[in-house]
Amino acid sequence: MLDQNLGQESAGIVTSNGASPPTYTAHKGMGLVSTAFSPEALTKLRYGNLGICHTRYSTTGISELQNCQPFVVDTLHGKIAVAHNGELVNAHALRKKVMRHGVGLSTSSDSELITQLLALTPPMEELDSPDWVARIKNLMTETPTSYSLLVMFKDVIYAVRDPYGNRPLCIGQLVPISKLHNPGAQEEDTEGWVVSSESCSFQSIGAKYYREVLPGEIVQISRHGVKSLSVVPRPEGDLPAFCIFEYVYFARPDSIFEGQMVYTARQRCGRQLAIESPTDADVVSTVPESATPAALGYAEQSGLPYIEVLCKNRYVGRTFIQPNTRLRQLGVAKKFGALTDNFAGKRVVLIDDSIVRGNTISPIIKLLKEAGAKEVHIRVASPPIRFPCYMGINIPTKEELIANKPEFQDIAGYIGADSVKYLTVEGLVSAVQEGIAFHIEKDKINSNNKSNRKVGHCTACLTGKYPVELEW
Amino acid sequence: MLDQNLGQESAGIVTSNGASPPTYTAHKGMGLVSTAFSPEALTKLRYGNLGICHTRYSTTGISELQNCQPFVVDTLHGKIAVAHNGELVNAHALRKKVMRHGVGLSTSSDSELITQLLALTPPMEELDSPDWVARIKNLMTETPTSYSLLVMFKDVIYAVRDPYGNRPLCIGQLVPISKLHNPGAQEEDTEGWVVSSESCSFQSIGAKYYREVLPGEIVQISRHGVKSLSVVPRPEGDLPAFCIFEYVYFARPDSIFEGQMVYTARQRCGRQLAIESPTDADVVSTVPESATPAALGYAEQSGLPYIEVLCKNRYVGRTFIQPNTRLRQLGVAKKFGALTDNFAGKRVVLIDDSIVRGNTISPIIKLLKEAGAKEVHIRVASPPIRFPCYMGINIPTKEELIANKPEFQDIAGYIGADSVKYLTVEGLVSAVQEGIAFHIEKDKINSNNKSNRKVGHCTACLTGKYPVELEW
Amino acid sequence: MLDQNLGQESAGIVTSNGASPPTYTAHKGMGLVSTAFSPEALTKLRYGNLGICHTRYSTTGISELQNCQPFVVDTLHGKIAVAHNGELVNAHALRKKVMRHGVGLSTSSDSELITQLLALTPPMEELDSPDWVARIKNLMTETPTSYSLLVMFKDVIYAVRDPYGNRPLCIGQLVPISKLHNPGAQEEDTEGWVVSSESCSFQSIGAKYYREVLPGEIVQISRHGVKSLSVVPRPEGDLPAFCIFEYVYFARPDSIFEGQMVYTARQRCGRQLAIESPTDADVVSTVPESATPAALGYAEQSGLPYIEVLCKNRYVGRTFIQPNTRLRQLGVAKKFGALTDNFAGKRVVLIDDSIVRGNTISPIIKLLKEAGAKEVHIRVASPPIRFPCYMGINIPTKEELIANKPEFQDIAGYIGADSVKYLTVEGLVSAVQEGIAFHIEKDKINSNNKSNRKVGHCTACLTGKYPVELEW
Amino acid sequence: MLDQNLGQESAGIVTSNGASPPTYTAHKGMGLVSTAFSPEALTKLRYGNLGICHTRYSTTGISELQNCQPFVVDTLHGKIAVAHNGELVNAHALRKKVMRHGVGLSTSSDSELITQLLALTPPMEELDSPDWVARIKNLMTETPTSYSLLVMFKDVIYAVRDPYGNRPLCIGQLVPISKLHNPGAQEEDTEGWVVSSESCSFQSIGAKYYREVLPGEIVQISRHGVKSLSVVPRPEGDLPAFCIFEYVYFARPDSIFEGQMVYTARQRCGRQLAIESPTDADVVSTVPESATPAALGYAEQSGLPYIEVLCKNRYVGRTFIQPNTRLRQLGVAKKFGALTDNFAGKRVVLIDDSIVRGNTISPIIKLLKEAGAKEVHIRVASPPIRFPCYMGINIPTKEELIANKPEFQDIAGYIGADSVKYLTVEGLVSAVQEGIAFHIEKDKINSNNKSNRKVGHCTACLTGKYPVELEW
Repeated sequence: MLDQNLGQESAGIVTSNGASPPTYTAHKGMGLVSTAFSPEALTKLRYGNLGICHTRYSTTGISELQNCQPFVVDTLHGKIAVAHNGELVNAHALRKKVMRHGVGLSTSSDSELITQLLALTPPMEELDSPDWVARIKNLMTETPTSYSLLVMFKDVIYAVRDPYGNRPLCIGQLVPISKLHNPGAQEEDTEGWVVSSESCSFQSIGAKYYREVLPGEIVQISRHGVKSLSVVPRPEGDLPAFCIFEYVYFARPDSIFEGQMVYTARQRCGRQLAIESPTDADVVSTVPESATPAALGYAEQSGLPYIEVLCKNRYVGRTFIQPNTRLRQLGVAKKFGALTDNFAGKRVVLIDDSIVRGNTISPIIKLLKEAGAKEVHIRVASPPIRFPCYMGINIPTKEELIANKPEFQDIAGYIGADSVKYLTVEGLVSAVQEGIAFHIEKDKINSNNKSNRKVGHCTACLTGKYPVELEW
Repeated sequence: MLDQNLGQESAGIVTSNGASPPTYTAHKGMGLVSTAFSPEALTKLRYGNLGICHTRYSTTGISELQNCQPFVVDTLHGKIAVAHNGELVNAHALRKKVMRHGVGLSTSSDSELITQLLALTPPMEELDSPDWVARIKNLMTETPTSYSLLVMFKDVIYAVRDPYGNRPLCIGQLVPISKLHNPGAQEEDTEGWVVSSESCSFQSIGAKYYREVLPGEIVQISRHGVKSLSVVPRPEGDLPAFCIFEYVYFARPDSIFEGQMVYTARQRCGRQLAIESPTDADVVSTVPESATPAALGYAEQSGLPYIEVLCKNRYVGRTFIQPNTRLRQLGVAKKFGALTDNFAGKRVVLIDDSIVRGNTISPIIKLLKEAGAKEVHIRVASPPIRFPCYMGINIPTKEELIANKPEFQDIAGYIGADSVKYLTVEGLVSAVQEGIAFHIEKDKINSNNKSNRKVGHCTACLTGKYPVELEW
Repeated sequence: MLDQNLGQESAGIVTSNGASPPTYTAHKGMGLVSTAFSPEALTKLRYGNLGICHTRYSTTGISELQNCQPFVVDTLHGKIAVAHNGELVNAHALRKKVMRHGVGLSTSSDSELITQLLALTPPMEELDSPDWVARIKNLMTETPTSYSLLVMFKDVIYAVRDPYGNRPLCIGQLVPISKLHNPGAQEEDTEGWVVSSESCSFQSIGAKYYREVLPGEIVQISRHGVKSLSVVPRPEGDLPAFCIFEYVYFARPDSIFEGQMVYTARQRCGRQLAIESPTDADVVSTVPESATPAALGYAEQSGLPYIEVLCKNRYVGRTFIQPNTRLRQLGVAKKFGALTDNFAGKRVVLIDDSIVRGNTISPIIKLLKEAGAKEVHIRVASPPIRFPCYMGINIPTKEELIANKPEFQDIAGYIGADSVKYLTVEGLVSAVQEGIAFHIEKDKINSNNKSNRKVGHCTACLTGKYPVELEW
Repeated sequence: MLDQNLGQESAGIVTSNGASPPTYTAHKGMGLVSTAFSPEALTKLRYGNLGICHTRYSTTGISELQNCQPFVVDTLHGKIAVAHNGELVNAHALRKKVMRHGVGLSTSSDSELITQLLALTPPMEELDSPDWVARIKNLMTETPTSYSLLVMFKDVIYAVRDPYGNRPLCIGQLVPISKLHNPGAQEEDTEGWVVSSESCSFQSIGAKYYREVLPGEIVQISRHGVKSLSVVPRPEGDLPAFCIFEYVYFARPDSIFEGQMVYTARQRCGRQLAIESPTDADVVSTVPESATPAALGYAEQSGLPYIEVLCKNRYVGRTFIQPNTRLRQLGVAKKFGALTDNFAGKRVVLIDDSIVRGNTISPIIKLLKEAGAKEVHIRVASPPIRFPCYMGINIPTKEELIANKPEFQDIAGYIGADSVKYLTVEGLVSAVQEGIAFHIEKDKINSNNKSNRKVGHCTACLTGKYPVELEW
């Protein structure tokens, strides 16, 4: 299961009854998972031993029903289903290659492209069953990043993470409810396995965090359990490039990446920000809810009292990931109420997790000022975003980014703040990496262990340094 | 435009702006055309110079959104869109072939299969533009029947009919409204061209019947007009095999096939039925509305007065083409009202166009008898259906067909009639063929002319003689 | 059950479990009955012993959910439900009266008005149960026409027709399926009773026509059977005024009014039209489907052969009763296909049942002419409509009626026909009244019998003679 | 505008063009305001000078479309529209009274009842316009509580609060955007007036808090501005009875009641709770989001550090006000994620705002314990709810309330906590009343001023002491 946290746009689920030949049942729809599947549609799904689903957050693909994941195709040996999180940096060249082979592509999605690549090369054998692992490895030689994949064939799911580990992927263990949070639960107790982009989704289905899929790793999940098949290496000298913005903004705070909870990484960012950019002010507050851990970290480090200045209006969705500007703007106006009495006459340090376009924070500052704040100092718990992401995150175009506009020279004036300071790239990286604690134990993976795990993050949107050369 | 008359299930439309490279816009939905496209969706369509749409009547493919036509794929040279009416007799072998080449098929529809075959073989050239006509010809050598196709690429549409001409296809001319029914309208006046399974759809969009696409013919439609490119021949000795059930049941009575109006063919069937099976009765009537031309023909030939015995309840759909038995039965009970005073105490000859399962006619007879009919004699204007259709018509399984049930021995007793007679196969064929008048003029087509047109129809569902050998 | 034939707009159903106190369950929705009630909504209805439902054809009330029938109100003695077909000629004065009493009216519907009038006057007694019959009689003294009512209270339904009998109302008997059309079915066999505007609806629910409710009659239906309680008289000298347009256009042809089938009355209108307005022509045809009986009558009388010239496009609703002009016009264009070969080169007499605005027939004539008809002579099986209806029929305003436009002077030229003739008012009345055969037997009603039944029809829309003085 | 904060069930809006006679346009729907009104429906509304809308939170009335507010009825003098928040304690007797007068009530809603009472008594005058104020006063003598009303007639809205002030009601001033938060904005600058249950809704429409409607006050809002017409007194000796649960749970924290912000009242409750029930623990946290102010207050008072232990899963609605138990339970399981690293091994004081049934807090405690909390001490910032509310709040039945179950004797054991303490009634009342600061200035109201304002709150659900005698 790739997780539903990021995307509000479309959802698909495919289940297999694990029989030979298997019967796959699929349903796709637009909207949140909770609404995409009507009860009627769900009863059509014959829940079997296996299932993959995906809620996608559209990046390159336009928001069309046809682009909904997972992609299922019939091959010579039966159906395979593929769910994909990420964006292939060399998608354009790969599409050409596939089409040159004579295949028509019915969507603009990378998922279909990956599926056809898996089916296509090398030529489908006339064997009893194709060597999917070899095919996956072959695919991984053709595209370096970014992808976390689930490939389902008959009664096996392969969980795959690209060699740079750009997109997250982790495995959960369905234990008996009675042993759910029992530290003594053994692998033998497992009732099933789930795979997700974010570990936070495990809890809601009664599963227990098991481990991450490593960068480049192919993990096989079947009735025989979880088995690490291979770790495809990066080019010599390249570090992993896990998306640092997962820590900054995307992930739910209770998710675990690289052995640490996202919430604590955000708290450290807040502390680091207080060290880098202290403020002469009366109170520290947050743009709820995502900036709250950083705000609490800032308050703790600075010694200023933490208060609330805004209350969230319920029933308004997240601002960053809705599809167009108009929807974003519409939402902002009605999003917050001012808790006037808490800050009237005071100098407020307001922590935000990121400033992308500047059009969310600006009305908030106006609101606080008009409601009586004496000063409003913005402290941003991440560096300015300056560069596009070609690896799956829907960052606005360069021109739309506030950090690339002339107004950025006087950002405080532009957004109406008394001062604005950003966390440095170095500060962010060190705050994030400080807490990394690989706890993948030796017996869970053959070829890797804690001691030789490399650490590295993709900061391309902040620095312009992309983990691989971009081909267009 | 393949026509919406047959199918109630799904609809798709694709338009091209004819630019280079072209922009295609697609929308698909379930249900009748009138409901499948919400006004919002329609406004998304950028109506260009070209458009193909299709309402499909599901045969082998299950009724899924994904199977909606037309199928659009991106190829090395740009997008092609394919709409298909019919069913490939060797679909299974062709799917194997495509998949052996390494292509995954994402649906069970023949349309995708055709699209991928067009893209696949021969290998896509690295030329400026592929030779689609050669590819279409190649496709036609690989599958004999049944298909009427529309293939759209950039600013050209190819209208293709299989060599056996099993499915209908004809071309309409959009003339200025002022000249719509003016016999003097010239080809120069043309404002556009439309292609449809049935000519009856032309009227509703202000178009004029131009001509049929011949069996095996590839017609190119572009801004330069209509041009017959080629006629792919059948194997030596094989006759055309146009589905005779289009005349009997499927087509709208105002449609024109092979130079004759469907209505008049049905009238001749009624006359032939009166000759073959005269009845000692008082009045002739119809199961409205599809059997009315045959009933009027029977009445005329027999000299018996034509009356109405049933009035149709509005808002009840057509019985034959809804997806399952329960829906069919539900509809029958409320479908008709008895015009009691017209037939009480009389001996009624009731003409029906076909008896498939026997469960539609049976409650009608009961209704008439209980309302006072002295006798009810059923005369069916087509022979019994005994065999499955593998060419795109959703005929019930052999077991469900009344003609294959033991009860057929006493069909009159089974359905409660005083007598039941069917038109003979010979009677049907001669009644249909009597009116054929090829009026495709010489200058409209290069390689064919009236004098050497062969006549032949597929009667497989009645006789078990399929036009080609079936491969499974 | 007031019938669903006329109205496409809204539907409501109320059932009572007949207990004391009863539980009523209601659901209302917009659209056809078949769509207004989702399966979920229907399962909410606790089907009890009793139920009334109504599909309304909006006349004065705008098409709002709130105006959906039946109207249910809670009174001192429990809930009553009222369904109403018709339009109170003195609704305005009655609304004033009710509001002067201090009652606020939440809708513009007559049904609410009637319900409040029933509850209001005389003052609600502090008895165990109010005398609803007295209240209904009282209501009938306050408003002469037009109404057919169903009033449900606890376990009793009162079926009421106004003294002029302007709107139809008849009773059906639910007999065991085994005896459904058995003439020997006795009243003792009754399993239930249904009431409808049109008898045609009985068949579809397995009921048998029992009898009409007479003008002015109050019929009580309960577990003790059907009982005529009273017949409220008209003012001395006034004749009944049953809407003659029910015969001409509204009713389904298999309905029975005044002892005759609507179809046969329409056939007689066709014959009378042939007598009044013979035509020198080759063939007679119909604007399907409602004019067919008249066309067959005309053909029989004139000796001209009956043919079909138009085939109806399925899935297009009835033209007359949709809510606005635009929808009406939109529908016409795609409604019919021309059966060209049947009439090309011939002089056609085309029978229509009525011409209201002239904008339906005009494109049909154009279609036939352009398709090759040599001449098109319109014969209308009813007189021109010149006056508004204030009794519940949604006739266009005077200005919209073709008969009131200057163009009517040359109606043939205006609509493009070679000639146009209408049936005379006298011809219509005599054709309708010729077939009346009261068959309400003595034992079914106390105070009336066949011999002293008066005959009379409302022809106000044709003559401007309204059955009662109009108060505004 | 009565506010949409409380209810998720149904929404209605009525606008008047203020003309004479006025045209009212209404739309009603189920669901949140944001979904109840489709864009199409909204364009039907002709926004005039005036408008009232209401989102109701069903209490006694079942959740039916018909019960949607506001209620509009036509009276002798024109239409009035009434929106109601609250529940009439003597609704049953009033319904009897209205029905005895002969009025049928078409819904079970108090709104209709109020509307009919307004229309009914005294008898509607034959004057040019009725004395609505006298009628409203008369109504207020007939029912003591609870209601906040908006009554719209032509171009005037009357905002009315019951003499006990049980439900909130306040007025907002639409000022020019340029002066929105300018303290210098004068009454002359007013561009319009809005009325709402909660002041928090003003901000989102660009309005400014003006003042509360006082208990018993009738305020007229028209083009001539806001005018206090009258203050209907309570019986001698009775105190106001504003619902204390608005402070505890219902209101949005940025709302202002009785001159204080709800947030600060909640903070004081938290402080009071820390004084009454100190805890030997390591950290203080909240059940987000509604208990956060109390948790921060508790932390401040106790000196324990405030941390976050739970993160909210987005897209899950508020638990208390959904219609049935099943929906409530379904939601809880997926509602929160545990921020494990923040509290593992620690003793947690968890603040909740209220415990109603005990089935929300119980799984949260389980979650925290299983995730490693050493101890979990529940501190509830309000007293146990023991009694039903008959004044409009959908409190569960006595039997469902945890405080009335035998398990309450060992509530900590029952819900799995290490200890449970509630705020006392006295503590709650003093914490709430401490911050009351009547700032209604003299010139805004004739008959009242700060000095003689009485303070009092309804604590019936906590104490069983209802503000008025209950009649049933």
